[in-house]
Amino acid sequence: MDSEKSKTTLNAALSNPRQDIAELDALEKKIFALRYSAEELSSFGPCLDPAKATEERGEALAILGEQMQALLVDPQVGALLDRLHENRAVLDETHRAQVKILRRDRAQLVDVPPEVQSNFVRLATEANDVWEKAKNADDWDLFAPYLDKLVAGQIDIAQYRDAEKDPYDVLLNDFEHGSNRAFYDSFFTKIKDTIVPLVADCAASKHQPSTKPLEGSFDVDRQWNLAKDIVAMQGVDRDAFWLGKTEHPYTAGPGIGFVMVASHVYEDDLLSNVYSMLHENGHALYEQGVNWDYRFTSLKGGTSMGMHESQSRFFENYVGHSEAFAEPLIQLMRKHFPGQLTRVTAFQLFSAANKVQPSLIRTEADELTYPLHILVRYEIEQALLAGEVKAADVPKLWAEKYHHYLGVTVPDNTHGALQDVHWSWGEFGYFPTYALGSAFGAQFKHAMIEDGMDFDGVCSSGDLAPIREWLGQRIWKWGRAKDSGELIASATGEPFDVGYFTSYLVEKFSRIYGLTR
Amino acid sequence: MDSEKSKTTLNAALSNPRQDIAELDALEKKIFALRYSAEELSSFGPCLDPAKATEERGEALAILGEQMQALLVDPQVGALLDRLHENRAVLDETHRAQVKILRRDRAQLVDVPPEVQSNFVRLATEANDVWEKAKNADDWDLFAPYLDKLVAGQIDIAQYRDAEKDPYDVLLNDFEHGSNRAFYDSFFTKIKDTIVPLVADCAASKHQPSTKPLEGSFDVDRQWNLAKDIVAMQGVDRDAFWLGKTEHPYTAGPGIGFVMVASHVYEDDLLSNVYSMLHENGHALYEQGVNWDYRFTSLKGGTSMGMHESQSRFFENYVGHSEAFAEPLIQLMRKHFPGQLTRVTAFQLFSAANKVQPSLIRTEADELTYPLHILVRYEIEQALLAGEVKAADVPKLWAEKYHHYLGVTVPDNTHGALQDVHWSWGEFGYFPTYALGSAFGAQFKHAMIEDGMDFDGVCSSGDLAPIREWLGQRIWKWGRAKDSGELIASATGEPFDVGYFTSYLVEKFSRIYGLTR
Repeated sequence: MDSEKSKTTLNAALSNPRQDIAELDALEKKIFALRYSAEELSSFGPCLDPAKATEERGEALAILGEQMQALLVDPQVGALLDRLHENRAVLDETHRAQVKILRRDRAQLVDVPPEVQSNFVRLATEANDVWEKAKNADDWDLFAPYLDKLVAGQIDIAQYRDAEKDPYDVLLNDFEHGSNRAFYDSFFTKIKDTIVPLVADCAASKHQPSTKPLEGSFDVDRQWNLAKDIVAMQGVDRDAFWLGKTEHPYTAGPGIGFVMVASHVYEDDLLSNVYSMLHENGHALYEQGVNWDYRFTSLKGGTSMGMHESQSRFFENYVGHSEAFAEPLIQLMRKHFPGQLTRVTAFQLFSAANKVQPSLIRTEADELTYPLHILVRYEIEQALLAGEVKAADVPKLWAEKYHHYLGVTVPDNTHGALQDVHWSWGEFGYFPTYALGSAFGAQFKHAMIEDGMDFDGVCSSGDLAPIREWLGQRIWKWGRAKDSGELIASATGEPFDVGYFTSYLVEKFSRIYGLTR
Repeated sequence: MDSEKSKTTLNAALSNPRQDIAELDALEKKIFALRYSAEELSSFGPCLDPAKATEERGEALAILGEQMQALLVDPQVGALLDRLHENRAVLDETHRAQVKILRRDRAQLVDVPPEVQSNFVRLATEANDVWEKAKNADDWDLFAPYLDKLVAGQIDIAQYRDAEKDPYDVLLNDFEHGSNRAFYDSFFTKIKDTIVPLVADCAASKHQPSTKPLEGSFDVDRQWNLAKDIVAMQGVDRDAFWLGKTEHPYTAGPGIGFVMVASHVYEDDLLSNVYSMLHENGHALYEQGVNWDYRFTSLKGGTSMGMHESQSRFFENYVGHSEAFAEPLIQLMRKHFPGQLTRVTAFQLFSAANKVQPSLIRTEADELTYPLHILVRYEIEQALLAGEVKAADVPKLWAEKYHHYLGVTVPDNTHGALQDVHWSWGEFGYFPTYALGSAFGAQFKHAMIEDGMDFDGVCSSGDLAPIREWLGQRIWKWGRAKDSGELIASATGEPFDVGYFTSYLVEKFSRIYGLTR
């Protein structure tokens, strides 16, 4: 952006704030329409589109993305945003936040030559195809050259954006504003120092929870009816909600007044969809809870990947996997499966859902071992982006780390380094936000109790309104107007502290596994 | 466009056709993405969106529309299209057709000042709201001032576009390229001269078909299963198809590979959805049948409203309401309602579906009286646009014409001039295409038989492949590349002749009603 500076200063001198604000509003509406369309196409698509729709949908999405990029990188838009930024004293709070976010979104794009950007998108599209074949064929060598190219491409892009900065730091900051390697190194050190020995202690304990009481075959239609009741119990606004069916659950929010959750149901795994729904509905509550006045602005949606994940995991884990909530939850489940679940107690549900089981697959991990799966990915991403390892080295590293942190033996790459889609999209720096989001929640729970909330009482009542109210006022309503660091500080009265998370895990799993520490 | 002429000529002299074609392709992709998005938002919306989605969807659609308009009216796009038009000799057939259609689409917008256009859109949005209230309250006076303003607004717009031309001619030509008042006057004269006495003869006949055998209560889920079987029997490509539920049936085609039909089911009216499905699937077949190479171009979709309606009505009436098709149709219906329909014969279905019953409501009209409902609207639109009558005069005119043409007494405006939504959208000149489309079909049927097709044999076999093949090669695959006049001439070997339609109606209903003429 340096080359524009002299022009910008001139423009600022000649600016007319009222006219500039009108232009800002018009720009925001155009961005809104493109985002709304892209979000609706990409969210309905996997649930509803027939097979032959895929190519046209993909092309439409690609073009909408190019249009969005063209809007933001337009030098006139840059000048407008710079003028507004220099005149920010005369802007209201909302417009000031819009300018901050738009400048940040623009900065991610503007210094990268369009052909570099579009070559990377094309590479990632091809890499994703190859990854799918490689995963099915357990063929790391097929995917490896693409992974090397994707890493090189992201390093290239990161250097266009900020040649002074470590490339992985640039990418980490994209997904979680304000984060970098130093932050995550410290975070993950505390995570592994706590969790690795705790997992070992759980494995060695004589008290082993049983999943037996919840096993069996559960009618699929009844599971969907249960899912709808979970939506209602969580307090998702059904006038702004659509529930779809898919293979991999996800949430999408084209509008504040229109959020969709897609989930799956397995006949032989009742808990899978119960906790998927609690998780996705947490995302949905965040999207719906943003200030209604932000509808047509860039302030819509969650402020970061980590904060979004903190909201989904808050409802999945801190509420959903608590002993207190097991009571209203088993009651709801019994309503739909009276024959099968009559004799299952809340404690049995709580125990079954919290069984610690080191495993190979991230998406099937329990609450305690989950962050270790993320740790493996973080360490490998870091080494790849630093040029310390190549794609060819990854399977060996992966096996070593899974053995070291989780004590499991990786039998093949399909159940190893090929299991996740993210790298094939060219996304590096995304995984760490999954663990970070889990950790944010512990601090929120602590603060709720400090604020006088009877947290267990709220969970055991099944009426989560006080939790929604607390999160709604302190997190959701701000959308992207405040960064996660600001939100955590103002919501909890202190900066982020991973200690709340590690204490929570130690306390919870020591109790379940009868550990004395 | 006159003001641009000198510049255009200069540009043409400096043009580089290869560069211009690349720009054309890029323009078409942008238009494609906006159209695809708008079509998906507006088609999924009414089926799926929760209540609170409406405002954001409306805003997104409005902005997409503005973006589309801005793309087309851009003077550089005008110059590009003019250069390509002047160099059309070097273009391939597809690009030549694209330039023709884009110039036509642009001409509809470019001479109308943007504020005139957007004021009209705003007026129509408000008028549509008022119309809904007026219809529910049977309050013509509430809607009348809006109708007068809408008529004045369309006259204004038509004069910006072509001050020399009769405004109604401008509008008629929008919906059906090449049509005007003179064409429709002649068309409707023949229609009324044939149908009005024929309806009277049917009413006077001793042979009255009975709807009794098809009356009863029919399970809604079974009706939806029947609907899916009708989709299969018609040969709609289910890999490019999505079936939704709505109040007023419609078809939408975001892509050639993605067409949706939304329909309704009434427990006490089995035939309603059967014929709605046959109708909407006809639209769907047309959308799916367009040349796959036109996917990302303005040549996608049907060539005109009349031609689209001709395809839906071909399957609804010429096939669906034929005696020959009644056999496979009743067999399919019996499969889903074995108890209720076992004793109902094909002839009873054919008779019930073809009962002539002059009525007040257009959308419930039978095949024979339907064009008379359109005639009433055509005559009133014509008078309104010519300034011969005002909105206040419409209810009286409406009642007179319904009495004159259909012999029915209009009890109120809810069942009279307030029944249709179209005028409240500011659409004048659309209605006539409904009757025209019906008439096209008779000529197609005649030509199929001339070409050696055993039309009744195809219908009675239930395998409609020969009909799909005929229409697919002669009509569908051309998309918007050829106008309806060209398509009719090349498909049937002669220009459009309403005589095929009137002969068909006389023959069919004379036989059903035992008339000797």
